[in-house]
Amino acid sequence: MRLPDLSVQTHAACELVEITGEVRAALRAAGAPDGLLLVYVPHTTAAVTIQENADPDVRADLLLALQNAVPARPARGSYRHAEGNSDAHVKTALVGTSATVIVEGGAPVLGTWQGIYLCEFDGPRRRTICLKVLPG
Amino acid sequence: MRLPDLSVQTHAACELVEITGEVRAALRAAGAPDGLLLVYVPHTTAAVTIQENADPDVRADLLLALQNAVPARPARGSYRHAEGNSDAHVKTALVGTSATVIVEGGAPVLGTWQGIYLCEFDGPRRRTICLKVLPG
Amino acid sequence: MRLPDLSVQTHAACELVEITGEVRAALRAAGAPDGLLLVYVPHTTAAVTIQENADPDVRADLLLALQNAVPARPARGSYRHAEGNSDAHVKTALVGTSATVIVEGGAPVLGTWQGIYLCEFDGPRRRTICLKVLPG
Repeated sequence: MRLPDLSVQTHAACELVEITGEVRAALRAAGAPDGLLLVYVPHTTAAVTIQENADPDVRADLLLALQNAVPARPARGSYRHAEGNSDAHVKTALVGTSATVIVEGGAPVLGTWQGIYLCEFDGPRRRTICLKVLPG
Repeated sequence: MRLPDLSVQTHAACELVEITGEVRAALRAAGAPDGLLLVYVPHTTAAVTIQENADPDVRADLLLALQNAVPARPARGSYRHAEGNSDAHVKTALVGTSATVIVEGGAPVLGTWQGIYLCEFDGPRRRTICLKVLPG
Repeated sequence: MRLPDLSVQTHAACELVEITGEVRAALRAAGAPDGLLLVYVPHTTAAVTIQENADPDVRADLLLALQNAVPARPARGSYRHAEGNSDAHVKTALVGTSATVIVEGGAPVLGTWQGIYLCEFDGPRRRTICLKVLPG
């Protein structure tokens, strides 16, 4: 069962936007069966992660650590890609373009501290998030 | 088909614990059909990976390389999260909270050298691992 | 539905090989139903990612950034694994051994700029890629 896509406007170059509420609402509206949910972004400079939803400082620290591990200008060598956003592509490859979660009773089965996040690495932009539920 | 959760006690701050045997046993006990298996941790400082199960040195090297790429105290800037475990959150976002494997004949289809691992990044703790099989 | 495995010969130590065309052909040949496709590599030094398929420089930059973040000789400490390819194992754990995409009308639902790539981190070698479609 394909749910309607989500559309999220980001507001910074790098930003984690929580979409747990939107995902819950989409599952509920669709009467989603038990199974698995794929949360997928059709972009190459934005990713999906499941991370802590309690302390917003965790999100800031995640962006800082990623920037340190994959700086905009590489510590050794130089990037070739003319658009100047190579680091955003690399961060996307590391975090991943999707997350899969269990669905039960029409809701995602998340840990106490888990939320679902869109990771913007080259914003601000309008981003699309595809949602697909497989029953089982 | 949701299988009973696994429960694993970790014994170090950072540790890779192989759970391939427990996953195999859970599939067998449930008479799991052919399909896909999601191995999911409902935590924000522990992850799941599929890695080499032959030489335990690979696990030590993985933890060292992750620590170098995402140090406890960042090379530039400073973490804000008061709990002091920001690096554990970042490592979890990079490695991921789940792995998906093919199930055939009641067993996971793994490569010769592949094993399924719980990655503890902020232990020791008791960790839960959720297992869900979708037939197909 | 398990599709026939793909087999890819890589030609460099580190290389991104696009397999989108092969995946499309495999789905079409099998008359794959709507659902989810798992693209899985049964290796511990090769990964799967979904990344930009327009500018090949993005691939070179991805390999450079990964090499900087996870160098062959660690910035601090030393690797124990005798084979000397610990960095390849770590990169695989970071990028991941699989990608999941939506299937509709017998084709993968990819973003405009997205392609599916085998990531070779310890080649050249012959690599296997497993494809499994779950209907739904």
